[in-house]
Amino acid sequence: VSGKVYLVGAGPGDPELLTRKAERVLAEADIVLHDALVSREVLALVNSGAQIVDVGKRSGRKLLTQEEIHSLLVASAASHAVVVRLKGGDPMLFAHGAEEIDALREAGIDFEVVPGITAGIAAAAVAGISLTDRRAASQALFTTIQRGTVNRSIQWTGISRTTTLIIYMPGADYGEVARQLRDAGWPEDMPCAIVSRVASREQAIRISVLAQLEGEAPLPSPALMIVGRVVRREAAELAAEFEGRAESWDRGGAALKVI
Amino acid sequence: VSGKVYLVGAGPGDPELLTRKAERVLAEADIVLHDALVSREVLALVNSGAQIVDVGKRSGRKLLTQEEIHSLLVASAASHAVVVRLKGGDPMLFAHGAEEIDALREAGIDFEVVPGITAGIAAAAVAGISLTDRRAASQALFTTIQRGTVNRSIQWTGISRTTTLIIYMPGADYGEVARQLRDAGWPEDMPCAIVSRVASREQAIRISVLAQLEGEAPLPSPALMIVGRVVRREAAELAAEFEGRAESWDRGGAALKVI
Repeated sequence: VSGKVYLVGAGPGDPELLTRKAERVLAEADIVLHDALVSREVLALVNSGAQIVDVGKRSGRKLLTQEEIHSLLVASAASHAVVVRLKGGDPMLFAHGAEEIDALREAGIDFEVVPGITAGIAAAAVAGISLTDRRAASQALFTTIQRGTVNRSIQWTGISRTTTLIIYMPGADYGEVARQLRDAGWPEDMPCAIVSRVASREQAIRISVLAQLEGEAPLPSPALMIVGRVVRREAAELAAEFEGRAESWDRGGAALKVI
Repeated sequence: VSGKVYLVGAGPGDPELLTRKAERVLAEADIVLHDALVSREVLALVNSGAQIVDVGKRSGRKLLTQEEIHSLLVASAASHAVVVRLKGGDPMLFAHGAEEIDALREAGIDFEVVPGITAGIAAAAVAGISLTDRRAASQALFTTIQRGTVNRSIQWTGISRTTTLIIYMPGADYGEVARQLRDAGWPEDMPCAIVSRVASREQAIRISVLAQLEGEAPLPSPALMIVGRVVRREAAELAAEFEGRAESWDRGGAALKVI
């Protein structure tokens, strides 16, 4: 057998946020290699005859290296017709998709990328924040915090204040994020939203400003931060309205808790 | 009746790139107000009893103003239980979602945002370009070209060269885009990909570099441009492989033509 590998975006968690194409490919899969972040509800959509391998964690602790994942992908394609590499969010944004594509290409294996809803887009939807609201923003930067001392704040220095920042993996020290942004010239009163576990039953949001982030207790991970004038008080009000809703998870209407 | 309004992302065109939630909401809709960019294949998923209104174009020519769309949304919610506002791509990225949310909030109408696959994410998938390939990029900026003479190139001046640019609506004059980028200090040899009509039967890609954009014939719109070191020759090779494929549209495997 020389199988085909589908790099599939699982979205942020809610199984209703999968694309229809991802749903079809999961139903046709012979083997699925998934990251730790992929939700049980999404895995429930996999063909019942398929082998499911968690490559995010093995024995509950040890992580597979990226090289080991590449070997496993190539080996899987040699013995299975439809191989699915299932990643949280979207495979082409903060997901090491390129390295896996290179490994498949080198091995001469056919592949296709199925896009997914990335966490930042899902967070904007649940919080009702238009990332490019033309009254306050012209563009949206999907980024992550650079830790360590070298080139720390380079990436945010020259960015206009009409750019909305969507910061993946902000870590537990929100004060550090605020310091890097202030060092890069961002004003203290710039609004921000922290969205925790978006599109899960535990999703929660906090609306704040940069000056208030120092010393704040972190929300449960995974979380992301949206920084910019597009973040408005109304987003919190909207979130509060969500809180009272009785819609079930199955209807895709998990409550958004305001913390 | 006081209905609920769903702002739904229709994705880039391929009906398989709708989310499962969008599919459900379209099946439950009583009225759908859609933009001109939404594909016929997506509209075919709408509840057969629902009223379908094209608010992107009326009488084949005239555009509704944003204000008129707001009025229509509010009026629709007064007489229909499930109102869908269907937008190409994602409602929170380059889609005037915030203004429509404000209008609904002012009118006291319940609403919910259903995210979609935005064109830039779909283009990255079909071209096999990892927007944040950690060997060449640290972040991804979703932006658009600012025309006119005031503050023309402000938005790209201070952005690090390890940022991947995804430029929506680059227009027909690719040389103008290249000039703005060069004025902002981007090197002439920076690779770029132009992806035309992504996720449609006519999708096409051109791989180039900034220096070569001047005078190039434009690809059919809508198109977008990806600029950055993550754009590699392999993307063109991948595209060429796609071209020979016999998979049908229904299988979500529309050929990607290299131009």
